Amino acid sequence: MAREPKVSLIPLGGLGEIGKNMMVVRYGDNILVIDSGLMFPEEDLLGIDVVIPDISYLLENKNIVRGIVLTHGHEDHIGALPYVLKKLNVPVYGTKLTLGILDSKLREQNVHNQAKLNCVKPRDVVQVGPFKVEFIRVSHSIPDAVSLAIETPIGTIVHTGDFKIDQTPVDGEVTDVQRLAQLGDKGVLALLSDSTNVEKVGYTMSERVVGQTFDNTFREAREGIIVATFASNVHRLQQAITTAHRYKRKVAVAGRSMINVVNIARELGYLRVPEGVLVELDEAGKLPRNQVVYLTTGSQGEPMSALTRIASRDHRQVEIMPGDTIIISATPIPGNEKLVARVIDQLFKQGANVIYDAASGVHVSGHPSQEELKLMINLVKPKFFMPVHGEYRMLVKHAQLAREVGIPESNIFVGENGQVLELTRRSGRFTGRVTAGRVLVDGLGVGDVGNIVLRDRRQLSQDGILIVVVTIRRDTGIIISGPDIVSRGFVYVREAEELMEEAKEKVKTALDKCSAKKMYEWSSIKSLIKDDLSKFLYEKTRRRPMILPIIMDV
Amino acid sequence: MAREPKVSLIPLGGLGEIGKNMMVVRYGDNILVIDSGLMFPEEDLLGIDVVIPDISYLLENKNIVRGIVLTHGHEDHIGALPYVLKKLNVPVYGTKLTLGILDSKLREQNVHNQAKLNCVKPRDVVQVGPFKVEFIRVSHSIPDAVSLAIETPIGTIVHTGDFKIDQTPVDGEVTDVQRLAQLGDKGVLALLSDSTNVEKVGYTMSERVVGQTFDNTFREAREGIIVATFASNVHRLQQAITTAHRYKRKVAVAGRSMINVVNIARELGYLRVPEGVLVELDEAGKLPRNQVVYLTTGSQGEPMSALTRIASRDHRQVEIMPGDTIIISATPIPGNEKLVARVIDQLFKQGANVIYDAASGVHVSGHPSQEELKLMINLVKPKFFMPVHGEYRMLVKHAQLAREVGIPESNIFVGENGQVLELTRRSGRFTGRVTAGRVLVDGLGVGDVGNIVLRDRRQLSQDGILIVVVTIRRDTGIIISGPDIVSRGFVYVREAEELMEEAKEKVKTALDKCSAKKMYEWSSIKSLIKDDLSKFLYEKTRRRPMILPIIMDV
Repeated sequence: MAREPKVSLIPLGGLGEIGKNMMVVRYGDNILVIDSGLMFPEEDLLGIDVVIPDISYLLENKNIVRGIVLTHGHEDHIGALPYVLKKLNVPVYGTKLTLGILDSKLREQNVHNQAKLNCVKPRDVVQVGPFKVEFIRVSHSIPDAVSLAIETPIGTIVHTGDFKIDQTPVDGEVTDVQRLAQLGDKGVLALLSDSTNVEKVGYTMSERVVGQTFDNTFREAREGIIVATFASNVHRLQQAITTAHRYKRKVAVAGRSMINVVNIARELGYLRVPEGVLVELDEAGKLPRNQVVYLTTGSQGEPMSALTRIASRDHRQVEIMPGDTIIISATPIPGNEKLVARVIDQLFKQGANVIYDAASGVHVSGHPSQEELKLMINLVKPKFFMPVHGEYRMLVKHAQLAREVGIPESNIFVGENGQVLELTRRSGRFTGRVTAGRVLVDGLGVGDVGNIVLRDRRQLSQDGILIVVVTIRRDTGIIISGPDIVSRGFVYVREAEELMEEAKEKVKTALDKCSAKKMYEWSSIKSLIKDDLSKFLYEKTRRRPMILPIIMDV
Repeated sequence: MAREPKVSLIPLGGLGEIGKNMMVVRYGDNILVIDSGLMFPEEDLLGIDVVIPDISYLLENKNIVRGIVLTHGHEDHIGALPYVLKKLNVPVYGTKLTLGILDSKLREQNVHNQAKLNCVKPRDVVQVGPFKVEFIRVSHSIPDAVSLAIETPIGTIVHTGDFKIDQTPVDGEVTDVQRLAQLGDKGVLALLSDSTNVEKVGYTMSERVVGQTFDNTFREAREGIIVATFASNVHRLQQAITTAHRYKRKVAVAGRSMINVVNIARELGYLRVPEGVLVELDEAGKLPRNQVVYLTTGSQGEPMSALTRIASRDHRQVEIMPGDTIIISATPIPGNEKLVARVIDQLFKQGANVIYDAASGVHVSGHPSQEELKLMINLVKPKFFMPVHGEYRMLVKHAQLAREVGIPESNIFVGENGQVLELTRRSGRFTGRVTAGRVLVDGLGVGDVGNIVLRDRRQLSQDGILIVVVTIRRDTGIIISGPDIVSRGFVYVREAEELMEEAKEKVKTALDKCSAKKMYEWSSIKSLIKDDLSKFLYEKTRRRPMILPIIMDV
């Protein structure tokens, strides 16, 4: 009997974490990749700029990777592509806006020339190796988002991407529930679905709610208005612009990434700006205060963003006036709460009225709540279910939901990055693991910062460093210069002269001990200095700076 | 005509921030201090352990400080006392549990012997200089919390401390609304009220809600139970212990601070533990899994706490078994969200069921929501109002509430730390500022880490350090050893040998330039090395490590 044909699903990112989404679908000697996202580093990854998936598995199987399909244009789904395409230049498929945003990222990193980008529309079907990939319109917090239906020789796999089921989307493009229902009718082998908001009961509110809030707020505002939101939320920008126009205000845009998105979205027809409404920042500054709306980045309190600089009076072209209305049209991403709170405080101190909490209708999520998630499962009626895009607890909750909706427990698979889920027509099981993890990007270095460097940065960040230098004659072992001590990040030296002098004495004593014991091996001398000095400093200060002895010989 | 008598209110902490609460009341040459709290450092204060108020103003007026009165035993109200009392050993007044907790802190820092602690009960009145201070029972997330009514020669000032109006408190001790109403009747000059929860509409739920959740959860639990909460929430501990006893489970306590509080609270009669219910951790480990409840610290995901160590299988005496129920009886303090999420994920991965979000009734706040705040103002009917304890936006919102309740705008004062509010019987105004700010504690150092050290730690944490050492003959200026380069936290040196070699060459070239130009001044040589190397490394890596040239002479 022939071996039963099978498809493997291998997440390289997005499981057990929010971000760097990447899923591999393999059938025999054919690999299809879904998305290629990055994530921003957690606090303990000191100095790291971004985190991307480890694609060792793809590089080992370079010759059988047939293409990358994209669900939408957010960083956590396309942000790693500039790095991935440098090493794996396969065809990329995505919708117009997704590719527009991707293209500007590729240009920044000089990889746009060789990239093979293929533009698709919802309901388009493309053949990628043995896979027939269909793109299905969904609502999300960026236009032109799609789910994917991947027809494989053993059945169809539906990957939702990020989605919500907004019944009244700003652009009128409702999630294509018809097509999802048709697929469900025909039979779907597996559904992979977005778990980000699984902890929320009920339905996620429509994006239009925010438009209503803008209208109420703009109507009441007597001075300037600033709306801070995510650069890529084109529907949100559209609503702000439309409302501004309604109340006869001009709109000026601050913040590099937002200017970039506004340009791309206008050019590609996703943002409709009435003639004359958009003005330059300098021009806006000259208009009467009650005729301006600023759209800015910085809704997460990012230190270098436009709103943060405006709030700290550090922006060249925009300033706060008493009576201004500031709308923070976002909720803080976990970890950013304090940054956002600091900005809000600064704005209040300057006499602005800040509208910031989700309860006031200035933000809605782009992800599906529990009722939408259940509806998705009921539309698609999959045989197998795998929650994706979420921290582990969210995947567990999403699995619970799927059980409630009637998927048998044995057909639900809560995986981890790198875990291989093998599906046949009749059964599924985890069969092994491939390399998967995170690659740290720091400046131009991709993957060169590892645990040792991070551990050093951590120690340096907590208590600083003490460097002990001494010059020794190679032939006699006699000290001819030093010991000198230099410190950074440890104590304010001018106020700790005595401590530093005592430290120097400690080093001298250690060196004397060495020569008395005829210890001439440098590594032993260094570790003795290190131990003695470390102990002394801990007793005196309860701090543990890094101690770095350097011996020069002549 | 004689000058009108006046009272000054001078916040030294807690305004524009959550934490390190401290308020000064001054009448002529008499100062009364309310609370002395600490706060935990924000992320950007690298290596700092705690932050305490700057008490320069009190030290300048040392001879007229009559005493310190305490509202309750939380860190943000008493945590700075060990530091303050070392410099300013004045009488301290507080309730029994507050002083019990304080005493254990003073012992840790060896300041308990000289401290003059005076124990009071609710409705007690003590005379401190010209001030008559009355203690008024309030509910809070720690027992024995009080508001203060301070009778001054020009009128009564009510300071709420932290409070909520729990109609069904666990210990039956309802907030003393009668006394507050009496004071309001007699006339109150000023009310200073807790703003922490002013953003929440309605009423804060009763602590009993959590007891009900414990009951439901314990009843259903089939395996072990772990309850993680704040060590000082004695009512919460009481409810967990009572419920455990009801379901015939033993209770074991993990985590140093919780063991400490349990001991103090039992000894002072604030925690009632039925005979035989408390067992040691080792003993608990030997009991059948379904007969144990662990009470642990770590509800904030603190890296060294009991729950975090248990979750990462790093606790000697407690481990997770599949089917265990873990209750995280707290909400994450802003900034801790990610830490808590990580712990929850680890617990789920080990097969535990984790109950964590506020919606499931496992936590209620200890602070008053809007309706309680309005009630407090209506009870006390103050002439003047000053919101305290809160970030700036909260103070602004609290001021709005006060206006809604009928306090005239001109009688409401939103202040900042250090700002002096002068009240007479008839009017109030801000008159100036005194020194106020934060003092950083790092190990044994109090205030010795300043901006320069922090700036260095920040740079070190992001891109590490490169040290360049060279030994030069003093007389000839000729290099006789080096240049050597040592780096930490910059790149993994074994994989960057080429870069380090090139860097060395750059330094040599810089040194050659110096001798060619007859530049012998060390500071110029150093800054040339720094500039050239920094530019080179930035081009190569887009990183900016600290560069530290050291010249040794012989």
